[in-house]
Amino acid sequence: MLVGVGCFGRQGKVLVCAPGLAHRRLTPSNSDALLFDDVLWVDNAQRDHADFVNKLRHRGVEVVELHDALAQTMALPRARSWLLDRRITANEVGLGLTEATRAFLEAQSPRRLAELLIGGVAAADLPPEFRPGSLALAGESTGVREYLLAPLPNTLYTRDTTCWLYGGVTLNPLYWPARRGETLLMKAVYAFHPDFAADTVWWGDPERDWGQATFEGGDVMPVGNGVVLMGMSERTSRQAITQVAAALFANGAAERVVVAAMPKLRAAMHLDTVFTFVDRGTVTLYPHIMDAVRTFSLRPADAAPGVEVTDEGDRAFVDVVAEALGLARLRVIETGGDIYASERRQWDSANNAVALEPGVVMTYDRDTLTNTLLRKAGIEVITIVGAELGRGRGGGHCMTCPLVRDPVDY
Amino acid sequence: MLVGVGCFGRQGKVLVCAPGLAHRRLTPSNSDALLFDDVLWVDNAQRDHADFVNKLRHRGVEVVELHDALAQTMALPRARSWLLDRRITANEVGLGLTEATRAFLEAQSPRRLAELLIGGVAAADLPPEFRPGSLALAGESTGVREYLLAPLPNTLYTRDTTCWLYGGVTLNPLYWPARRGETLLMKAVYAFHPDFAADTVWWGDPERDWGQATFEGGDVMPVGNGVVLMGMSERTSRQAITQVAAALFANGAAERVVVAAMPKLRAAMHLDTVFTFVDRGTVTLYPHIMDAVRTFSLRPADAAPGVEVTDEGDRAFVDVVAEALGLARLRVIETGGDIYASERRQWDSANNAVALEPGVVMTYDRDTLTNTLLRKAGIEVITIVGAELGRGRGGGHCMTCPLVRDPVDY
Amino acid sequence: MLVGVGCFGRQGKVLVCAPGLAHRRLTPSNSDALLFDDVLWVDNAQRDHADFVNKLRHRGVEVVELHDALAQTMALPRARSWLLDRRITANEVGLGLTEATRAFLEAQSPRRLAELLIGGVAAADLPPEFRPGSLALAGESTGVREYLLAPLPNTLYTRDTTCWLYGGVTLNPLYWPARRGETLLMKAVYAFHPDFAADTVWWGDPERDWGQATFEGGDVMPVGNGVVLMGMSERTSRQAITQVAAALFANGAAERVVVAAMPKLRAAMHLDTVFTFVDRGTVTLYPHIMDAVRTFSLRPADAAPGVEVTDEGDRAFVDVVAEALGLARLRVIETGGDIYASERRQWDSANNAVALEPGVVMTYDRDTLTNTLLRKAGIEVITIVGAELGRGRGGGHCMTCPLVRDPVDY
Amino acid sequence: MLVGVGCFGRQGKVLVCAPGLAHRRLTPSNSDALLFDDVLWVDNAQRDHADFVNKLRHRGVEVVELHDALAQTMALPRARSWLLDRRITANEVGLGLTEATRAFLEAQSPRRLAELLIGGVAAADLPPEFRPGSLALAGESTGVREYLLAPLPNTLYTRDTTCWLYGGVTLNPLYWPARRGETLLMKAVYAFHPDFAADTVWWGDPERDWGQATFEGGDVMPVGNGVVLMGMSERTSRQAITQVAAALFANGAAERVVVAAMPKLRAAMHLDTVFTFVDRGTVTLYPHIMDAVRTFSLRPADAAPGVEVTDEGDRAFVDVVAEALGLARLRVIETGGDIYASERRQWDSANNAVALEPGVVMTYDRDTLTNTLLRKAGIEVITIVGAELGRGRGGGHCMTCPLVRDPVDY
Repeated sequence: MLVGVGCFGRQGKVLVCAPGLAHRRLTPSNSDALLFDDVLWVDNAQRDHADFVNKLRHRGVEVVELHDALAQTMALPRARSWLLDRRITANEVGLGLTEATRAFLEAQSPRRLAELLIGGVAAADLPPEFRPGSLALAGESTGVREYLLAPLPNTLYTRDTTCWLYGGVTLNPLYWPARRGETLLMKAVYAFHPDFAADTVWWGDPERDWGQATFEGGDVMPVGNGVVLMGMSERTSRQAITQVAAALFANGAAERVVVAAMPKLRAAMHLDTVFTFVDRGTVTLYPHIMDAVRTFSLRPADAAPGVEVTDEGDRAFVDVVAEALGLARLRVIETGGDIYASERRQWDSANNAVALEPGVVMTYDRDTLTNTLLRKAGIEVITIVGAELGRGRGGGHCMTCPLVRDPVDY
Repeated sequence: MLVGVGCFGRQGKVLVCAPGLAHRRLTPSNSDALLFDDVLWVDNAQRDHADFVNKLRHRGVEVVELHDALAQTMALPRARSWLLDRRITANEVGLGLTEATRAFLEAQSPRRLAELLIGGVAAADLPPEFRPGSLALAGESTGVREYLLAPLPNTLYTRDTTCWLYGGVTLNPLYWPARRGETLLMKAVYAFHPDFAADTVWWGDPERDWGQATFEGGDVMPVGNGVVLMGMSERTSRQAITQVAAALFANGAAERVVVAAMPKLRAAMHLDTVFTFVDRGTVTLYPHIMDAVRTFSLRPADAAPGVEVTDEGDRAFVDVVAEALGLARLRVIETGGDIYASERRQWDSANNAVALEPGVVMTYDRDTLTNTLLRKAGIEVITIVGAELGRGRGGGHCMTCPLVRDPVDY
Repeated sequence: MLVGVGCFGRQGKVLVCAPGLAHRRLTPSNSDALLFDDVLWVDNAQRDHADFVNKLRHRGVEVVELHDALAQTMALPRARSWLLDRRITANEVGLGLTEATRAFLEAQSPRRLAELLIGGVAAADLPPEFRPGSLALAGESTGVREYLLAPLPNTLYTRDTTCWLYGGVTLNPLYWPARRGETLLMKAVYAFHPDFAADTVWWGDPERDWGQATFEGGDVMPVGNGVVLMGMSERTSRQAITQVAAALFANGAAERVVVAAMPKLRAAMHLDTVFTFVDRGTVTLYPHIMDAVRTFSLRPADAAPGVEVTDEGDRAFVDVVAEALGLARLRVIETGGDIYASERRQWDSANNAVALEPGVVMTYDRDTLTNTLLRKAGIEVITIVGAELGRGRGGGHCMTCPLVRDPVDY
Repeated sequence: MLVGVGCFGRQGKVLVCAPGLAHRRLTPSNSDALLFDDVLWVDNAQRDHADFVNKLRHRGVEVVELHDALAQTMALPRARSWLLDRRITANEVGLGLTEATRAFLEAQSPRRLAELLIGGVAAADLPPEFRPGSLALAGESTGVREYLLAPLPNTLYTRDTTCWLYGGVTLNPLYWPARRGETLLMKAVYAFHPDFAADTVWWGDPERDWGQATFEGGDVMPVGNGVVLMGMSERTSRQAITQVAAALFANGAAERVVVAAMPKLRAAMHLDTVFTFVDRGTVTLYPHIMDAVRTFSLRPADAAPGVEVTDEGDRAFVDVVAEALGLARLRVIETGGDIYASERRQWDSANNAVALEPGVVMTYDRDTLTNTLLRKAGIEVITIVGAELGRGRGGGHCMTCPLVRDPVDY
């Protein structure tokens, strides 16, 4: 059984997802709808991502890649049927097109099928023998709907889709409809792949509609000592946070959730875009936004619904976190540079560090000043190229979903 | 049993919804999210809507108002429980707030409850005795989520939410998440209100997620002769159109669906914003957009899924419609004015006429030129004030949902 | 000679501009470029504006209408030549089109010429005998440039274009290029019309480029006692404010300028959209924005450039204004209603009152709550219909340019 | 004297501008206003630009860099005074700040002064001894105005600012106000730098306001045989095109201007973003946009204003160009890839090739498919890294302003 313990203990095993077909579908006209700021050079993004994976492996981290895991899952007939039954429906693909699309997909190898499930199926992809008359209607549509199956380029950010928290997992209802297909893929992998098959689900199910209860892993940090940090952001709502907290408390999996109520800005879409741990008791953060955070603590309560809310008032978020971890205070390394430079760097994921073990982080090369500040503070900084990977506004932290971690001591 | 037969026969009975609390919640900062271009002066919008209702009644149309119908429904304990069980959930209202919110709502009169279900419940609405500790989290949120229950101002446009088609009804999955709560209200009314309770549902269910299959009544016109026109637009997708067509064909309720594949523009959000019937074989339309429409015909097929698609190629939409109705041609009255004026007028709902009976329509007063052209063509035009009502980009056609109509002969 | 003395003394004479041809050119696709939120029903806007003018006249205010004043000016051959020489140029109209356009305009009556100068000349307006071959190129252009002369719909807001300040006038360089043509028209009227011809220009000249020094009358209030209030806003820059202050000080026309440094928001485009005087020592304001204002005082200095800047630090703007006027404090009437209502009302120009004399103001009818609060405070409130006129986000204050006023005593 | 002859003859001498201080000022909040889609990693952009310059030099092209040329110019006291008199004005910098800002700038070395003139001066840049009291007002401003002198990051695209056309130069009035400062810098260099000082100006002067007559070099291609191609685009207006044509004809510098009337789209901001020459009679183009172009020819006329316009009707632009050059037809190499790929590649400047000599072009590395198609067609393709440089939507063609070229034979 895989468990995720501690957000900055040694990384045992992580899930990543390489750039691929989904990113070849990004164009200037659809990139907004698919949540990317710009198109990528996919060949180079793949090169840089491979370098990222290699560096993780060289530090002893076991890396699972989503195309691989999904292909292995799709090789199992029961899993393939389960997933295609749920993805190839009249609601998604269109009446009169489900049979042909399914037949086309069933004819693919598991590897190619995994690519198409992540990369999407365009009307033009269907070969002549799979083109029914009703395809004419699809040819008239534009935008994302011109796909029989929409591409899922944000799978690149595996952090968001599911969260391993103290012995179980959440299957997250993501904020943007354009990302919702991701969680169903993960459910298939977790439910059928032999490496994952026995795990506990704390909360969430992509086969249900969760309304306003949206939850993304970039806002979630299990920091040890029974504490989980959660950003309440544009994408992660109080409706979800309180449900996850109640589920963790009910299962004895956590004792306290510290909520960072964030300003709702594109630049601060998740807590991990402005605040990440880099060592025991040490964080890097972007002060311009973190100073505007308001903090709440959630703790178990006897009465239903099992959660008690405390408004921490004027206390700084870092002080509440330190107290929850039993520390006197957190050491803070701010985004480097003057007012122009720090805004540029936060945007380029300067604070989105992923810790491989206490004191060892990976970041993008382009944020040289923050990297220098981290190094001066004694942190080992391993860099990867961010020219292409960073254009969806996510860094190393966003691109990794920890599956197994060592606990961390304070 | 109520049936809708013919889109321009004599209007027997229509459903409307008066402006109210939901429109008092519209502000410059949230109106975009709630799909309004500007805030309304609600007092005057109510006055103008009352005039609209009076004029409908004076022409012999029976008018059902949604607040009334919902209040009557909420007076039934079983209906109230059914709806509150589905609306006041942890996913919408938030864990720790459902009990208090429900208790608050249960304490209201049926009339006030109906107002709050349409108008929304803000955190600030809860009186002191209904304010649990977890309300603090809600106070931190902004945007639509600051509501415990979001306002539904687009209920004003009853046309979209459900469609009465040849003896049954569709419960439409609407395109924008901000409107989806509307259909659940309608399901409660149709399921429990004694005037509606026995009807046949052709398609749709607000308790399920329909993915890409979105459908809005502004795109749907049952024009008689077994024919339904459907706009394939930003809001009404081929995934929905084909399913509804299949359901109608399977039940023998229709014989042909003529699809207008529309350019996806805010100005042409629905077919009825650019094309409506005003008399037997007579339509008003906005040529600038209708000229760009591509036409398809759907007909019953023996083989699954029971729908056959014909691409009508270069044939004009009006010619296909005429042929489907067995007419030599349609008489067409275009939006009036030069290039500036006609664009202004279409925007102000000039073509969104609602026919009370063949040759008698209601439109907004402001489109004087198109109204004059209609009158010169022998159509009786009854006007209402559009200064406030028109700011959500909908006219008389959008604001009425026909429940009973006389068939129309050709 | 006309002088403007005091922003809330008795209004002797004001300049207004009726809606007209320029507003008939507004369409959904060009209204953003022309700074309107929506299209108007011009007939009704004209009716409501006529009512506004009548009410001003019934209170003894002399009203000058811009189309009238411009037509009278254009009847003077020297003035017509002066203006057409500057408006009908290769840079604006296009080489090869200036002769035909000028010939067309010279053939019009003064009244029609004034209408076209304000309302714009479209390529389509040129009759066959005035259509040279090079018109083909113009037919290919889109947007505002399809005009040979762009419409100037913001002339409706005469307040902005020029300011009469203690015995002289400023000819303002407006912020948006789409409005810059307005000031040239005013220069023609002020320079040639016999009622204006001898006046002193403090600052500004539409025949020069003023770079970042933009200035709009909605931000300018000569409040008596030698004091002028100026909003430093999106549209009125410090580069302009300091130049105007220096000019007033150098001429002994004012002794102090109190600057309100405003947040740069569309809802607070000018100081007069959130703050206006309604009586001696009494103002109406929108606290949500005024609370964020930072205040500076400018006073004459001996050394060049003749202006000394004092940062008023944490002092409230209203307190600095009171002190400058020699009052203990200002009486404040805030925008009425809860958080939703007050935001709606400010947007609908609730605080944009124009005082006809101390204690007598004109406002839009739609802001009933703020109007009631004003009346309860003893202010006489005369209302006009705002359904159409308000769609450009301006009220009675914006629509009047005071030419002569009585001084006001404190 | 320097002359530009032929748009794809051998490049004798080009002007470029390295990334620098202006790009360090770009942030996510101001990049839109400064016309960049994203922030750059300036260190790497400089590295890639240096590689670009080296490759140009290795092919025998003489390269002039703008910082260098401006520094050399600023070393001349008369030139420095001329430029600072025009840049450091009350309209730009603000009254009360001109003296201090000028004193600060006069104290800099010519090199540093050139950097600040291109990179902008922020209020925070002034050292304590140069901070007058009126700086307080500037501290309150936001956006571009917080600069005492705005940065000019689009100097990177030297192609646009001035055009060398058959023996003379145009000093272009650029479309966006944010770029207008560029032309004044170029005028200073051309007027005072000894390498440029004697040249003929065909049209344009940054010290005048040109109204709607805006002109950008990305739309201008002197292709030899007395022919100039001009894109009539969002940025280059008919008002300018006809004036430049008239000036060229009047001086006998050209015999025909072929105008491509382009759809007004961000993706097609200039003709050279969708169409460039790569060899004698050979072009690369993006068919999706070029197919929508309408073509006009301008020729000398005896009568004023000296230009005759011919609408080429349905003739394809490439056919008119071929005819003007006396060729049977142009060879066309289209943007590579399917519908997704070609849209991505055009966006990434695939068609923005710069020809160093017939058959030798430089492009970005990322457009591998179009590069391969060019190579298969026998063109030598030299690539540079586009990861950073391309984020302002310009390629090698945009980044070079040809000063001297060999004529090209057909």
